[in-house]
Amino acid sequence: MTSPALQIAVAHHRAWTAGDLEAAMTYIADDVVLDAPAGRLVGLRAYREFLAPFAGQLLIRSEMLAAFGDEKTALIMYDTETVPARSAPAAECVTVRDGKIVHNRFIFDRVPFEEFRRGQAGDGVR
Amino acid sequence: MTSPALQIAVAHHRAWTAGDLEAAMTYIADDVVLDAPAGRLVGLRAYREFLAPFAGQLLIRSEMLAAFGDEKTALIMYDTETVPARSAPAAECVTVRDGKIVHNRFIFDRVPFEEFRRGQAGDGVR
Repeated sequence: MTSPALQIAVAHHRAWTAGDLEAAMTYIADDVVLDAPAGRLVGLRAYREFLAPFAGQLLIRSEMLAAFGDEKTALIMYDTETVPARSAPAAECVTVRDGKIVHNRFIFDRVPFEEFRRGQAGDGVR
Repeated sequence: MTSPALQIAVAHHRAWTAGDLEAAMTYIADDVVLDAPAGRLVGLRAYREFLAPFAGQLLIRSEMLAAFGDEKTALIMYDTETVPARSAPAAECVTVRDGKIVHNRFIFDRVPFEEFRRGQAGDGVR
């Protein structure tokens, strides 16, 4: 793995999928821009709040499917087993500057997560 | 672009995003397996029926964000402007054999498309 950007992306990925959100966040720039399915989030705190539910509550396991990169950009795709869905794949295209992720375009299907959330809300009012 | 798999993936992508579904399908193997957000589809006809609404009705324009590959695998991410959503990015991880795509893991967020479909259904009963 000779791509500097990919090394950062994979180190970040390994940390959060291993449940170590603190370590994962050390690879994220303070002024990171995250283009997530629900819209754009800016800054370290917003990134952390986006990732925390996956890393801390929903993720069961993750498997890297493909990972490529060059000097500044890395593109990874992985599958995850989660509480809401046995297969919830995601793809991330990250831009790295000075060893930190400054931008991430993060793609996944929100449908199983929204269904899960609605199911939990439904449980609450029964 | 020296990756044989990426050449196929990009040729397929350029064809369908230009509205030429016939040309796009020439890059797909008869026994293709497509892991889409809603589940697994098998065979050329199912692949075509999956792609046709995007290519023919919903897509306005597409922009490649990142594209990598090696001998057998290509990983691409692109954004699309569609009728349901101004930004509907997708990622595809394709496996190529004998010049044809034999497997595709296709990730996008179904939420804007489902909302659009529900909106259309609502229009129909007014």
